[in-house]
Formats: sequence, structure tokens, C-alpha cells
Amino acid sequence: MLKGKMLIGQSGGPTAVINASLVGAILEARRHGSITAVLGARHGIAGIMKEDFVDLTTPSVEFLENVAATPAAALGSVRLKPGREECQKVFEVFQKHDVRFFFYIGGNDSAETAYIISEMAKEAAYDFCTVHIPKTIDNDLRVTDHCPGFASAAKFVALAFMGDDRDNRALSGVKINVVMGRHAGFLTAASALARQSEGDGPHLIYLPERVFDTEKFKQDVRAVMDRLGRCVVAVSEGVADANGQPIASSGERDSHGNVQLSGTGALGDYLSALVKEAFAGDSVRVRADTFGYLQRSFPTIVSSVDAKEAREVGAFGVQHAVHMGESGSVAIKRESSQPYASRYFMTPLASVAREATEMRAEFIAESSNDVTQAWIEYVAPLVGDLPTMAGFDGL
Amino acid sequence: MLKGKMLIGQSGGPTAVINASLVGAILEARRHGSITAVLGARHGIAGIMKEDFVDLTTPSVEFLENVAATPAAALGSVRLKPGREECQKVFEVFQKHDVRFFFYIGGNDSAETAYIISEMAKEAAYDFCTVHIPKTIDNDLRVTDHCPGFASAAKFVALAFMGDDRDNRALSGVKINVVMGRHAGFLTAASALARQSEGDGPHLIYLPERVFDTEKFKQDVRAVMDRLGRCVVAVSEGVADANGQPIASSGERDSHGNVQLSGTGALGDYLSALVKEAFAGDSVRVRADTFGYLQRSFPTIVSSVDAKEAREVGAFGVQHAVHMGESGSVAIKRESSQPYASRYFMTPLASVAREATEMRAEFIAESSNDVTQAWIEYVAPLVGDLPTMAGFDGL
Repeated sequence: MLKGKMLIGQSGGPTAVINASLVGAILEARRHGSITAVLGARHGIAGIMKEDFVDLTTPSVEFLENVAATPAAALGSVRLKPGREECQKVFEVFQKHDVRFFFYIGGNDSAETAYIISEMAKEAAYDFCTVHIPKTIDNDLRVTDHCPGFASAAKFVALAFMGDDRDNRALSGVKINVVMGRHAGFLTAASALARQSEGDGPHLIYLPERVFDTEKFKQDVRAVMDRLGRCVVAVSEGVADANGQPIASSGERDSHGNVQLSGTGALGDYLSALVKEAFAGDSVRVRADTFGYLQRSFPTIVSSVDAKEAREVGAFGVQHAVHMGESGSVAIKRESSQPYASRYFMTPLASVAREATEMRAEFIAESSNDVTQAWIEYVAPLVGDLPTMAGFDGL
Repeated sequence: MLKGKMLIGQSGGPTAVINASLVGAILEARRHGSITAVLGARHGIAGIMKEDFVDLTTPSVEFLENVAATPAAALGSVRLKPGREECQKVFEVFQKHDVRFFFYIGGNDSAETAYIISEMAKEAAYDFCTVHIPKTIDNDLRVTDHCPGFASAAKFVALAFMGDDRDNRALSGVKINVVMGRHAGFLTAASALARQSEGDGPHLIYLPERVFDTEKFKQDVRAVMDRLGRCVVAVSEGVADANGQPIASSGERDSHGNVQLSGTGALGDYLSALVKEAFAGDSVRVRADTFGYLQRSFPTIVSSVDAKEAREVGAFGVQHAVHMGESGSVAIKRESSQPYASRYFMTPLASVAREATEMRAEFIAESSNDVTQAWIEYVAPLVGDLPTMAGFDGL
């Protein structure tokens, strides 16, 4: 039976519940004698290479419960997709410190890192297992039904659109909201949960899975304005033209080589200008907001399903590692949507690593500017109850 | 004793609790026999001129409670500062419909509208009273200790910074958040409530009450980065240079002649570019978010003091009108901060109308890039309890 130290780290963009996974794993690990110490890596792989560790064996349960309810990554995160040389360095640190269990909470890049290191350990016949614990607001990991972190961000987006639609009813015009999601439209699509009654926004939803045509966009907005006298638009930050060129971006690239799309108002301002152009002379009020980092780190807006599952995937990963001594990635299987029920299972690291996924065609309306009922049935149980909005429009 | 119909309307930018004031007034009005009917004006003054009314005598209490908890303006709002001619038209509609009680929920422009109409009624010896019910997330009304709507927006801003500061700890760099508030920095200053421990952001707070110097800004950010290796900045959308020119704006003006500052990422993008310039070659990660309309209309993020007071100022205004038959504006007097206690009183419409106020000097640090302890003591009881953030930075 595998015995030794456990090391856990967090990677990639923060979520509202990534710390729930961390705490779920820590508390489970402390129950097993084969785990001789629980260490945390500051800033993921970057901290491992510097041997920058935090002792997680001693912090009180009370303190850990506060951590679990705190958004972002309590150990610090990193946006580093390590090459072979860096993985080798990490593996050497593991050997030096007798780390036999490695848990990496992150997205597909983190699964890839875990995979490379697990292969190195196999080659070196180092008795070791590494478990990837899924996390991403983008919901774009393969195999799993959905990703911890997504539902809480989706709840934020749904609530934001519920309030903003009321704002738009009060002072009408065109309102464009830019939602996170570079390649996958899940989070943008969650805006549809804001609709409770006929006429509720968002009235148009643009996902990165479909080509964004600026002329079609102007026509779509015009049609909604003609019908309702107001228009609320949800658009993914990642929408691109027929050539795959992002509609608007700051041009900056992060260390993964990805163009920076968040943390800039460029797309919203550009789409506003398009709409103003389309309505030239009609003095239509046009505004755009880019939801930005609030979507992934706003405290207190947490889906209860998400918080529960995030914690349980952490604990499940540890149980699997301790009992089976096998590497893998934790995934979620949905057993039922009504009432909602799920269970956890392990999938090979390679099945999650590297490539991400995107929204299935059945979730996207043929018009390319909306979602389907199948999407609502998929996402609503994850997000959970939302408040009832009421006003005097319909009276 | 004054007897007749009551008309109520909402004006200006939405808040999370303006409907609580509306419902407080409606339910109180229904208790008084001297109010023969309760009517709502769709989109404030604009609806009155078109005689676009909603019957508020009949909706159920259950429905009204849903309205009270819904953000934005349930009757619709308007951004119209009516001239003398328009006020005359409004007054004629009042006479035609035997409206004897007029309640206008809004900011200083709405108080001014109420004042002009009350003067017209006086001249015409029309037995009538009009009450202004204060509302603004900007907290910039004179006389009152604070404005309903502010504390809930302040809570949103404080929570947003709490989460974003955690995000910035996880993936360090410079993060700039642009907060609403054209001339008054109250909402931007509320970001300081996000600080719970040494080193917590926001590390720099820029208010429109002080000149914004771009060179000083770059030095300030550099100093925080040198000290902490990260920097979270709160900046008001309204910051301006020594000549009073907004640092960045889209150039568009609304119907009040105000330059459009919200609903554009221009200021955030400009300040990001300044910081990148200052750190050229050091590859510092710089991001900006503009919180936008979420600050004023996000459902569920409501200060309990704010929700209670918003409802009570509505009810108090009706009681005063019914019992005294006098026009005026409802104001809040703070009786105590620890424990928090307040009471309501009436102030002449002219004392609130037209001119707004801004943050007192005692609330702003001498450095011009922070707030004082006096500010925290003022704002903390209004916003109420905030969650405890926890991480492994300090261990």
C-alpha cells in the first residue's frame, strides 16, 4: 500500500469553490494513516519547483471552513503550462520530499501536467499516484458531466442578467453584457436562466461555438428593438468571425499564448459602437458591461450543488488515491436531473488532459443567437433556486 | 384634511431597494382613508405627461413583497429633468385626475421636479402635497445622513473587492476596478470595507473629490508593487484632472448633459495602459474591470439596514403627507453608529433639490489615494456584516 506525503496545489483561474475542493481533500487526507503529512504548494507548479510549501496537517477545522467558503485559490494559483524540463524538476522535488500523493486542482492544462508527471514516475518506477481534481468556470473539461466552479459562476451570471434585465426595463435601450468563456459558451449560455416570464432578457445570446457575424448581430438587435423597444444581449468574450479572428481583443497574450480577452472593455465598446451605428439618428441608449473577474470570485454567490460537489470531488480523489494507489482525474456522472443526483468516478488523466470541450450542438438554437430547452434542463439543476423578479410591466 | 388620489413614480438610476421604498409607500397609503386611490406612474414624469398609470390599490401583498425584493424600478424610470413647461403639463394632469398626493422616489433632480410642481400648486392654490423619497447609490443628497440604495451598492462593491483581492493574491499583478460615482466617491470609498487583514486590498482608492494625477498614480502603483508584489486599485469612474476634465470618457452625453462614464471600459483600459507603460519590460500582469450596472441592480446583495430604511422612508413620507399635508423630502438622521440606530425627518424640498453633495474632507486621506478611519466608522454599520475571507498567505 502506497504510503508517504501528500502534496496539493491549485492552478489556473480562480473559482468560487476551488477552495472547497482543497478543504475536502485536506480533511479526507487527514483521516488516512498512509498519508504521513499534508503539504500545500504555493502557486501550484511554480511553488513546487521552489519548494514553497505550506503545512496543511495542522490548521484547525474552523479555519479550513473559512477557507472553503472563500473564493479564489487559497494556496495561490499559477498560469504555467510546464514543459518536460519543468515537469522533471517537479518530479525531482517529489522524490526529494517523499511525496507519494499529488493532487492538482485545475483545468485541462493541470490534468496534462499531472499526466506528464505520472508518466515520469512510471518510467522511474517511483511508487506514486497523482490525481487531477476538476475545476473551471468554463465547464469545458471532457468526460465529466460538468465542472466544479461552473455552477457558481453560472449563478452569478444568471443573477446579474436578472437584475440587469430589470434595469433595462426601467430605463430602456440596448444593453450588451460580455461574459467570460474563451472557447466554450457554457457561462454565457447560463444567462438564459434569468428568463422567468415572456419578454425577459437576455433576448440574444451569442456563443463562441458559432461564427459571430456583425451584420447579423445588428439585424438581430434591430428585430428585438422593433418587437420590445429594448434589448439585452449576452455575448461571450470569445466570439470570433468566420476566420476564427476574435471580434475584439487587446492583443495581449498570456503565458499560455492565449489572447487576453478579459479585463478589457474592448469587445463591449466595439459592439456598442456597432449598435449605435445601426440606429444612427434614432438616439437609442446603448451600454455595455464586461462582467470580468466578478464572475469567478464574487463571495457569497455560490450554488449549493456546486459547493457540495466541489468538496466531494476533493475527498473522492483522496479516497481513490489511498485505496487504489492509481492516478486519474475525478469526474462527475449525473444520475438524474429531476430531482438532481450525481456520483463521482475516476477517468484516465489522458482522457481529460490537453484538449478541452465545448457546448454540444443540441444546446444551441439553430438561429445561433439563443440556447435550447435541452440546455435549460441541463444547467438549471446545477445553479439551483433563483429569486422571483416582479414588476408592473405586465399589469 | 387633504383627501384625494395618490400618485407615485420612480426616477433616475435603479437601485437594489428603490422598490422597497415604493412598496413601503403603497402599503402605508392603503391604510389611510384620505387616500382614495393609489396610482403608479410608468417611467416617472414621462408617464405622467402621457397619463400612463398603473393601479396600485389592488395588487396583492404577496406580489408587492416580490416587487420589494426586486432590484431596479418596478414602475419604470426616466432620466428627464423637466423644464417649466413640462412641469406645468404634469400639474395639469394632477388637477385632471384629482391627484392630491404626489410621491417621487429619486435623487436631487427628482427633488427639484417635486419642488417646482409644489410651487405651482401653491400659486394655483391647489390643495396638494408632494413628497420626495430619497434614492441614489451615489449617496450624494444633501441633509440626509445617507441615501437609501447606497448601502446595498456599497455592499456589492465591498464583496466584489473582497473576492477580487483574493483573486489578485492567487494570480498576482495589478488589478484596477472602476466603480460608479460621477462626482461623489462614496461608492468607490466603500471598497475599503473589503480590508480585513494587513495587506488586504484595495491598496489604492481614487475618489472624484480629489484631482487625479496620472504620474502620481503610476508612482503609487509602483510603490505598492514594490511592497507587496501585487496591487488592487479602486477608482471612481468620475476621476478628473486638475482642469476638471474626466480622465477617460466615451464622449457621449445623456439627456442631463452629463458625459457617459458607465457602460464603457474606456477608463479601465486607459489606466491599464498607463500601468503597463510604467512597468514596461517587467511583464507585470495588468487587468481592469468596470463594475458597471451590476453595482446598482444585482439581486440578493442587499444591506439589511438599507432594505429596512428604504421601506420605512416610503412609509414615513406617506404618513407625513397624510397627517401634515405638507410637502418635503424624507431624510435620515443617524442616532448612533454602535449599535446602529436612525430616525426619519422631513426637510424642505429646496434643501435637497438641485445641488448634490460629495464626500466630506474628514473621510479622505491626506495622501488623496485612500480613505480614513472616520469613513469606515460611517459606512460599516450601513453595509452590515461581511463574510470572513481566509487563505494560506499569512501562515
